[in-house]
Amino acid sequence: METINIKTHSRNCMIDITSEIQQIITKSKIKNGICIVFVPHTTAAVTINENADPDVVHDVILTMNQQYPKNHPQYLHCEGNSDSHVKTSLFGPSITVIVNDSHLILGTWQSIYFCEFDGPRSRNIHIKIMQG
Amino acid sequence: METINIKTHSRNCMIDITSEIQQIITKSKIKNGICIVFVPHTTAAVTINENADPDVVHDVILTMNQQYPKNHPQYLHCEGNSDSHVKTSLFGPSITVIVNDSHLILGTWQSIYFCEFDGPRSRNIHIKIMQG
Amino acid sequence: METINIKTHSRNCMIDITSEIQQIITKSKIKNGICIVFVPHTTAAVTINENADPDVVHDVILTMNQQYPKNHPQYLHCEGNSDSHVKTSLFGPSITVIVNDSHLILGTWQSIYFCEFDGPRSRNIHIKIMQG
Repeated sequence: METINIKTHSRNCMIDITSEIQQIITKSKIKNGICIVFVPHTTAAVTINENADPDVVHDVILTMNQQYPKNHPQYLHCEGNSDSHVKTSLFGPSITVIVNDSHLILGTWQSIYFCEFDGPRSRNIHIKIMQG
Repeated sequence: METINIKTHSRNCMIDITSEIQQIITKSKIKNGICIVFVPHTTAAVTINENADPDVVHDVILTMNQQYPKNHPQYLHCEGNSDSHVKTSLFGPSITVIVNDSHLILGTWQSIYFCEFDGPRSRNIHIKIMQG
Repeated sequence: METINIKTHSRNCMIDITSEIQQIITKSKIKNGICIVFVPHTTAAVTINENADPDVVHDVILTMNQQYPKNHPQYLHCEGNSDSHVKTSLFGPSITVIVNDSHLILGTWQSIYFCEFDGPRSRNIHIKIMQG
């Protein structure tokens, strides 16, 4: 298992971590198998989405913020980040990607994004490669 | 890794791909392990849901369309499919299912569905079986 | 593969199943690999979220119930649980967690939760550990 550390710079953002993960696969010398990307936080997640037009990320974050607003009169949790916990369960803490011939098998427009929902913070991402 | 190709026939639909995946497992001769279903697109996803009453699929698609409408005055992405990208991250690009005695271990009412959120299109689905 | 059975006591609830899963890993003697938690139902899911303040679980369930209400004039499925099927696809039927030195690698505040969306019921959860 390898761990990446990243710094996030706003409350909600999506950071492309595809090349960092590919580097770990290359270093591992594992040719075929799967790669598990796991986020060990409860207000951050991981997803795969478009890497070409940054407006897609803008629109995804806009939608999530409007559908799941920060403040809600019935929220009990006193840290003011209940929306972040909801977004985390919706996007999920892990992603599994197929590895073929030492490469992540992603579609043309796909990148792996770390999703910050309660930044700015310092965050970890665990990477596990399984041969098979 | 194997790849299935399917044609979708409307903008939003869910297509049962369980039997195609089971055939790949049978062909692989792998008895025990896990099966990863990965969608290499950014406006399509994979999920598991009820296979008995087609009204469930109708209601799931209806809900997603109403909660995440196609048009939004603040969307910047000019292709008119920002809602499709949001739905993709919500449902997710991959599913992992346990394989036991050469069979997908699914509940009585579960099927694996390819989820089209920006069709009609020709789409690929990658299948990877890991022995263990 | 191992199977846990649990009883749920309300229509929507989240039950911490981390220690039951850790026990299965310990019993398996597998030191390193991944653990797949799979829910074989179509109105229940699995997620990872905060274990410290029970108000987080309250707020997550509140949000999901308000965003995806039980009744909708256009729902066709006659069992009155279309909202449960939607929530299931949003949270997802499976979670993959890294296992290192015989332990689930979870963040400080993370627990694995079974998510009941149409209880009370008796439910199963499948656990598969892959060595690697």
